[in-house]
Amino acid sequence: MSDTTPTPSPPPPPPIRFGILGCAYIARKLSRAITLSPTATIHAVGSRSLTKAKSFAAANSLPATTKLYDSYDGVLNDADVDAVYIPLPTSLHFRWAVSAARKRKHVLLEKPTAVSAGELDEIVRVCEECGVQFMDGTMWMHHPRTAVMAEFLSDSQRFGLLKSVQTCYSFAADDDFLENDIRVRPDLDALGALGDLGWYCIRACLFAANYELPKFVTALRNPVKNKAGVILSCGASLHWEDGAVGTFNCSFLSNLTMETSVLGTKGTLHVSDFVIPYKEKSTSFSTLSEGRFTDMDLEWNQEPSVHIVETDLPQEALMVKEFSSLVDGIKRRGLSPDKKWPILSRKTQLVIDAVVTSIDRGFEPVEVLWDR
Amino acid sequence: MSDTTPTPSPPPPPPIRFGILGCAYIARKLSRAITLSPTATIHAVGSRSLTKAKSFAAANSLPATTKLYDSYDGVLNDADVDAVYIPLPTSLHFRWAVSAARKRKHVLLEKPTAVSAGELDEIVRVCEECGVQFMDGTMWMHHPRTAVMAEFLSDSQRFGLLKSVQTCYSFAADDDFLENDIRVRPDLDALGALGDLGWYCIRACLFAANYELPKFVTALRNPVKNKAGVILSCGASLHWEDGAVGTFNCSFLSNLTMETSVLGTKGTLHVSDFVIPYKEKSTSFSTLSEGRFTDMDLEWNQEPSVHIVETDLPQEALMVKEFSSLVDGIKRRGLSPDKKWPILSRKTQLVIDAVVTSIDRGFEPVEVLWDR
Repeated sequence: MSDTTPTPSPPPPPPIRFGILGCAYIARKLSRAITLSPTATIHAVGSRSLTKAKSFAAANSLPATTKLYDSYDGVLNDADVDAVYIPLPTSLHFRWAVSAARKRKHVLLEKPTAVSAGELDEIVRVCEECGVQFMDGTMWMHHPRTAVMAEFLSDSQRFGLLKSVQTCYSFAADDDFLENDIRVRPDLDALGALGDLGWYCIRACLFAANYELPKFVTALRNPVKNKAGVILSCGASLHWEDGAVGTFNCSFLSNLTMETSVLGTKGTLHVSDFVIPYKEKSTSFSTLSEGRFTDMDLEWNQEPSVHIVETDLPQEALMVKEFSSLVDGIKRRGLSPDKKWPILSRKTQLVIDAVVTSIDRGFEPVEVLWDR
Repeated sequence: MSDTTPTPSPPPPPPIRFGILGCAYIARKLSRAITLSPTATIHAVGSRSLTKAKSFAAANSLPATTKLYDSYDGVLNDADVDAVYIPLPTSLHFRWAVSAARKRKHVLLEKPTAVSAGELDEIVRVCEECGVQFMDGTMWMHHPRTAVMAEFLSDSQRFGLLKSVQTCYSFAADDDFLENDIRVRPDLDALGALGDLGWYCIRACLFAANYELPKFVTALRNPVKNKAGVILSCGASLHWEDGAVGTFNCSFLSNLTMETSVLGTKGTLHVSDFVIPYKEKSTSFSTLSEGRFTDMDLEWNQEPSVHIVETDLPQEALMVKEFSSLVDGIKRRGLSPDKKWPILSRKTQLVIDAVVTSIDRGFEPVEVLWDR
C-alpha cells in the first residue's frame, strides 16, 4: 500500500515587517497595500509629529501593536523593522533612503526616486553595499496586465518590432494644488509634473522598448513652468538606435488621462489606464495585429481585440508582495538583492535627466548614456 | 373650409454630374461614393488609356451611358460634366485642378492637395476666379461622428480648453509598395507619408484646435526617408499661441493604427479609427469629463463614456453629397463657392510645409503664418 498521507505544506514565512516614513497621502494607499499583502505587515510608522502618526494609524485602522514614532530615525532604529516605505518629498529621498540602507533596512522608495540619476546612483550604491533590496514605487509594473501586455509586445508574430510609442499622463490640478502641493515646490519636488507623471510615461516608453535605453532625447519646446521654475506640463521625444520613436506629454493642467499606444511592424497595443486602472480588480487593454483595410479601403479587416486581465490583489499589494518576497529571500534564504529593479529606476531617471538637460539647453537632443 | 391638399414637394434637383480623372485605386471608392450619393452621378471617366477606362467602368459597374475618354482633357472638354474628382498623383494636381477650374468644372481634389501651400494657393485662386467650388478629399470631415466630436470639444463644461492633442496614423506597407507605389516616388508624391498620412494627423490637430493655426511647428528628429529622399515615417509637434501642444507620428512602416486623443482642461476625447472607421455604418468614440481618482487613488471615479454614431451613408458618400450640394447652390441658386473648405485645405498644407521646412532646417521651429 502506497503512502497517501499528504506532505504537510511548510508554514508560510513570517511576514516582512514594514516601517513607513511619513504620513503622506500616498502612504495611505501603501498602508492598505501592505495590509492586503499576505507577506507583509506594518510594524511601525514614523512622522515628524507623534500626533500625526497616531491619527494616521487610526485613520488607516492599523493594529494597536503598531509602533508609532515622532521621527523617521525612530523607525530606522527599530531593530524589528525589516524594510521601509519612503513616500517623502523627492528632495528628502537621498537622505532617508541612504540612512535606511545603512541601518540594513530594505528600501521601497516612491517615484521619482531622486532629483537626479547621480543621486539615485548613490542611493543604489549604498543599498548594494549594505546588501538591502531597492525598489521604486511604480505600481503598474506589478499588475498582471503588464506581464500580459509584455507577452504581446515580445511576440514577433503579433507585434513585430517596435516602431513608435505615444503616451501621456495628466490630471487637472486645482488651484490649491498648483499653489501649495509638494509637487510644485522647487525645494521639495523640483521635477514637478515630469517627476510625478512623466516618470510613468518614460517607464511606459522603456517598457515598450523592452527596457532598452533610447539613444537620445529631445524635449518639446515651451514646457509650462510655475514662477518658481517647476514644470507643470512638458513633453519629449525619445529616439532609439534602431529608429523607433517615443513621444510623451505629462501635465498637471489637463483632465485625468493616461493613454499609451505602442506601434510595431505587425501589431498595435493600446491601454487607457496604464498607471492606475479604472477598476482595481478587472482591467483591460486592446490589441490589433496585421491590420488592413477591406477592399476599396471601406472598412478595417477587424476591430481591436479587448483583453481582460483580472487580479485579486490590487497592483500596489502585488508590488509589496514582490518586494517582500525579495526581502524574504535575502533575509532567510541567503539570496542577493535583485538588480532588475534598481536598473529600471536608473533607466527612468536617466531619461528624466536628459529631458531636463534638453529643456535647459534650448531643446537640443541629449544623449542618454548608461555609463556616464 | 381650409385647403388640406398637401403641397407637393418639389422634385429633387438633377444630380451633379461627375467626371473622374484617372483610374487610381482610391477612385474605385469615390466611384462607389458618387453612386451612393443621392445628389451625384458619374458622367465620365478619363484615363490615359481607353482600355483602362473601360475596365474601370466594368469593374465598378458604371452605367453603360458613362462617357469614357482616353485623356483627362476629354473629361474637361465634356460640357455635361459639372465637377471633377481628381485622384491623380500629387505632382499632377496643380496642372489638372487648374485646367478643370478654367473649364468651369468644380474641383474635388484628393489629398495632399498640392506639393506645397504655394501651389495650392494658385489652384484655389483659379477656382475662385472661375467661380467653382474647391474641396479636398478628407472624407472623415463629413462623417456625422466628426460633428458630434466637435460638439464635445466646443463644450466648455465637458471639455474646457484644449491643452494637448496626440495623434498617429500608420500602416505597414509591403515591399512592393515601398519600391513602387506612387506615394514613395519623389516625382509623383514627394511628401510621402507626411502627405498621405500626416495630412490626416495635422487635420486632426487643427480639428482639435477649432481650426486655429499653430504658431509654430517643430519636426521630430530622424524621420525615415527612402533613397530618393521621400519620407516614409516622421512626426512633429505643433505649438499654439496659448500653449496648447499637438504631436503626431505618421508612418508607412508600422501596423495600421489611427489614434487621436484630445485633452482639455475638463475633458478628454479618444477615437481609434478617425480616418476610416472600423465599420462603415456604426462608429464610436469615447469621452471622459472631470476625471478624478477615488479616495486613496485606488480607482477612477468613472470609466470613459462610449458614444455610438451611426450613418446610413458612408463618409465618402456624405462628402460627395456635401460637395454636390454646394455645386448645386452655385449652379442653380446663384450662390458663391463656400470658402470654408479651401481654407481648411490651406491650413493643413501650411502645417505640412512647416514640417518639411523644419526637417530641412535641422528640426528648428518654423512659424506657421496665414499671411506669407
